[in-house]
Amino acid sequence: MVELSLAEGIATTRSIRRYTDQAVTESQLATMMFLASRAPSGSNRQPFRFVVLRDGPSAVKARGLLADGASELWSQKSARGDFTATTKSSPTARMIASMEHYVDSFASVPVIVLPCLVRYREASPSEGASVYPAVQKLLLAARSLGLGGAMTMFHQPREIEIRQALNIPDNVAIAATVTLGHPEGQHGPVRRRPLSELVYEDRWQGSAEWAVDPSGTRFTGGPQG
Amino acid sequence: MVELSLAEGIATTRSIRRYTDQAVTESQLATMMFLASRAPSGSNRQPFRFVVLRDGPSAVKARGLLADGASELWSQKSARGDFTATTKSSPTARMIASMEHYVDSFASVPVIVLPCLVRYREASPSEGASVYPAVQKLLLAARSLGLGGAMTMFHQPREIEIRQALNIPDNVAIAATVTLGHPEGQHGPVRRRPLSELVYEDRWQGSAEWAVDPSGTRFTGGPQG
Repeated sequence: MVELSLAEGIATTRSIRRYTDQAVTESQLATMMFLASRAPSGSNRQPFRFVVLRDGPSAVKARGLLADGASELWSQKSARGDFTATTKSSPTARMIASMEHYVDSFASVPVIVLPCLVRYREASPSEGASVYPAVQKLLLAARSLGLGGAMTMFHQPREIEIRQALNIPDNVAIAATVTLGHPEGQHGPVRRRPLSELVYEDRWQGSAEWAVDPSGTRFTGGPQG
Repeated sequence: MVELSLAEGIATTRSIRRYTDQAVTESQLATMMFLASRAPSGSNRQPFRFVVLRDGPSAVKARGLLADGASELWSQKSARGDFTATTKSSPTARMIASMEHYVDSFASVPVIVLPCLVRYREASPSEGASVYPAVQKLLLAARSLGLGGAMTMFHQPREIEIRQALNIPDNVAIAATVTLGHPEGQHGPVRRRPLSELVYEDRWQGSAEWAVDPSGTRFTGGPQG
């Protein structure tokens, strides 16, 4: 495997939701956990914890509950009509097909990791500052090993039962449900809005003339899956 | 410059709080913003925005307020006695010296970026899931260019005035205050708790026998700066 550069890894890592049956090894898991835990946190408190779900007795219960949650959240989005595919080959149509496969096979993805936050202060929009950097490092770490992953909130609909199944204490927040595995098939480019919509100079909505995307960048507009 | 691999970049990127006087170029800024905005977000909504503060008229005002905030937060930590250095060369003593220099020179750091979140739902511990991955990618992007950065919450003590100075709307949260520049001097290793304290298998506090740090890893225990 050719080693990916840091810049290329940051630029091209995207959500991977289709996995082969190939197992993720314990050595790969250890490497990913090590790299994820190099993330920063407030005062280096390291309040992040990772609950790894494979095929243990609690994992089997939690997987079923997470699959229920996946199905419920996806049904809600579909029912709201959040996504409308104009053609069968549009990025939106491909995303819908990928999400449906992901949700249907959720209980059997190779590995599920629940990054958790040991809460130490009141709820605020900045509370996630000490856990989501670690989640991002986890996803990049997967990519560095040739694996892929996706961050979801599929624990939310069945959170009470999942907490019971895994014995997660009240002062701990489940920050995300991350799936990991060997990617199946080809993956498209990372699509984002143009930098001119995301970057401001000197004040809110101040124009940053220098904030130009590299040539050949492909863009997306509104919400995706 | 030798190109850093993705794995090595994730493993070794740490908070950099001392910068040389060398300017960060607009081309470097554009690259960092591009890489940061490749981060995932819920339904790919991309609610993250980056307000870049250099030497514009609003930036000058905001820098003064941020420096006040830096000073105030650091005084509070010192007064609480959060940090006690046992020897002059201990990691804690070095961290305290580095923090004091950082706080004292805060108004003149080469670039300050305020990553913001356009809020679209109620406050919850998971709200940060759509902005802190971008902050982490920004810090890694800096490293990929040979730059360094640090994430702080120094906007918090003077947030109302900073919002006024930068015209930030009420529905937008300032997620962090990130400083960026060319690193000065040598930087130590990233220190974290042993993986055995951070990684669980199958359930909360379930022992993950495979979660072993690479040999030579250096550890830290409690809170740091």
